[in-house]
Amino acid sequence: MSEKNSHLLSNRIKSVPKSFIREILKVSNHSDIISFAGGLPNASLFPVSDIAQASAKVLEQNGAKALQYSNTEGDLSLRNLIAQRYKEKQGIDVSPESILITNGSQQAFDLIAKALLNEGDDIIIENPGYLGAIQSFSLYQPNMLTVEVNDNGMDVAQLENVLQSSKPKFVYAVPNFQNPTGISYSQENREAVAATIDKYDTLLIQDDPYGELRFSGEEKESFYSLIPDRTIMLGTFSKVVVPSFRIGWIVAPEWLMDSLIIAKQASDLHTNYFSQLVMSQYLTDNSVDEHLETIIGLYSKQRDAMLSAIEEYFPEGVTTATSDGGMFLWVTLPEGMSSMELFDDALESKVAFVPGHPFYVGEPKENTMRLSYVTVDSETIREGIKRLGKCIKNKMQ
Amino acid sequence: MSEKNSHLLSNRIKSVPKSFIREILKVSNHSDIISFAGGLPNASLFPVSDIAQASAKVLEQNGAKALQYSNTEGDLSLRNLIAQRYKEKQGIDVSPESILITNGSQQAFDLIAKALLNEGDDIIIENPGYLGAIQSFSLYQPNMLTVEVNDNGMDVAQLENVLQSSKPKFVYAVPNFQNPTGISYSQENREAVAATIDKYDTLLIQDDPYGELRFSGEEKESFYSLIPDRTIMLGTFSKVVVPSFRIGWIVAPEWLMDSLIIAKQASDLHTNYFSQLVMSQYLTDNSVDEHLETIIGLYSKQRDAMLSAIEEYFPEGVTTATSDGGMFLWVTLPEGMSSMELFDDALESKVAFVPGHPFYVGEPKENTMRLSYVTVDSETIREGIKRLGKCIKNKMQ
Repeated sequence: MSEKNSHLLSNRIKSVPKSFIREILKVSNHSDIISFAGGLPNASLFPVSDIAQASAKVLEQNGAKALQYSNTEGDLSLRNLIAQRYKEKQGIDVSPESILITNGSQQAFDLIAKALLNEGDDIIIENPGYLGAIQSFSLYQPNMLTVEVNDNGMDVAQLENVLQSSKPKFVYAVPNFQNPTGISYSQENREAVAATIDKYDTLLIQDDPYGELRFSGEEKESFYSLIPDRTIMLGTFSKVVVPSFRIGWIVAPEWLMDSLIIAKQASDLHTNYFSQLVMSQYLTDNSVDEHLETIIGLYSKQRDAMLSAIEEYFPEGVTTATSDGGMFLWVTLPEGMSSMELFDDALESKVAFVPGHPFYVGEPKENTMRLSYVTVDSETIREGIKRLGKCIKNKMQ
Repeated sequence: MSEKNSHLLSNRIKSVPKSFIREILKVSNHSDIISFAGGLPNASLFPVSDIAQASAKVLEQNGAKALQYSNTEGDLSLRNLIAQRYKEKQGIDVSPESILITNGSQQAFDLIAKALLNEGDDIIIENPGYLGAIQSFSLYQPNMLTVEVNDNGMDVAQLENVLQSSKPKFVYAVPNFQNPTGISYSQENREAVAATIDKYDTLLIQDDPYGELRFSGEEKESFYSLIPDRTIMLGTFSKVVVPSFRIGWIVAPEWLMDSLIIAKQASDLHTNYFSQLVMSQYLTDNSVDEHLETIIGLYSKQRDAMLSAIEEYFPEGVTTATSDGGMFLWVTLPEGMSSMELFDDALESKVAFVPGHPFYVGEPKENTMRLSYVTVDSETIREGIKRLGKCIKNKMQ
């Protein structure tokens, strides 16, 4: 089929910008490059043999049933385990019926957008914000409004301003160890954001892929505790157990759940049922908390290695956002320096990162960058940051 | 969260009709009912131990890699195996790069609609047609036009008429053992449909979940052979290997593939990678053709049992559409008889089917019904058809 048919494409798909990050990951993937550019968890920590055992057990115990079609909502035992964990870890009461299993959080974005957005509807996203969500929402052609995030969370005055002059269907937020900045909303900020949102006719989508990866500091309150009537919670096993299963979930109120189920059914009938059963078996036979200790042990050690190397090798005028967990550090270069230009120099020195540019909607802060510390060992982190420091210093001269 | 927020729902989701079939399946699922209503394959034929072996092998050989995020397009080894099968079975040349792995065919509908449809765009579907596709497309709010299918395939004169007075983005067709009717397009019909479509600025989506379940007759030509520039092919392992893995695919031209990849990435990043590897391993270690022989052996025996019971127990004036394979028979009751009313009588006699009504867009043929023969053994089929025959005769008096 020739290009002549490309006029048949939809407006929505024609409006999606090329993924700049994909290009960056391509050039960063060479084995001789120290890459802080990735967004993936560290595969060396995946519980391979526990998953193998769970897989074998599921087929032994369920036989053909594990391989048949299943219900759209998701396996009830898995939804029960998720509900239990909300209760145990966060003291939140969530019924299994209010949980819809999705293909990772990514599908949650798509289903929520399907159920809520008309073309041109206002939505509010964090700036900088999570690219996967921005891309998914953008296919529903909303009017994307932004509110800045800083070290303490969302800029509440700006949020109030935007809410006053718009009618957003929802505010999308990653309050714990945000991607790309690694920052968390403080308790005070959450309360202020919740109180502000509660004054308007809108919802809050709380995405939380990294919440369980806390290295230090106290757990903050969920928006679901603060404004339950307005909060939709997203969760995923991708950063806590394994990503390849693509198992995430949405906690949604009844009035929305019916529509989400229709959207899910129309989108792919249901999430891989075999893998849902394996995940459920894994969670039953193993301690997620023990596994999390291992992950947190390694990630926090490497985060500390990165922070101390930054302290040592980055010149004055470079700042790093405070982060108590997750996978990323957010670095701001001196005013006027372009991290895009720095990227080219860094690549010559065999070190890579993601420039801040693509995480912004609208005017980007060109002097920002995201560094992942999770897949590189501490010694290599030190070497990589040293090289990067040199490149920054060269740019300052 | 109270109902007060339901005004936030999107127009598209509010426009989806309640699934009537779900309700029917609910009442048909009791163990004392002989159900011809289901749409699921027969789970007793699923290759449980082969899948268990493949799963273990994948984790042994790939370790953590099998549990990490993967690429959006899908596993290349799996796409190679699919391409090989097209070559071996249908003599069709398809490159692995033109194949996108999806979560079953169901996700293929969603991604194609995302990439092609603007609100209000015309599309053409078969009448009666596949509900899953209709529901998925309907969320993109197209203008659905219909063309009737009969024993030989699509009504070509009607197709030409509809094409003359509309500008459809695509024609959606299930040319082999269609759901719900079990009919196939004849070779002549395919050629006429292809020639007609080729005169207009449109595409043909060839969905083919049942094509490999041929009991008798000769394989017909794929639309991909007839009008390659205009054909998008869909496939799935759900009816041939197992459904719970949710592995299907789209064969699409380059100009569309880029957009489908963006749509897939935004929808769920990628399909469960572990299960892709397991499917790939299963296909490498086992003969699908031998497995298909087993499926075809059982299904065709049961199809024959149903046909001979219909011959014996259904009164004159009831007709059954010719079918050489798949999972369904399509029965037309005497003019004026309502299969919806018959459904209530049948349920009292502990036998269930799906009335034809929900498969129609627009004016339904109320005297039609779909019977599945794949999950009920031959003796029980006989008993069920006997009861059904009695109900029909009662209605005729």
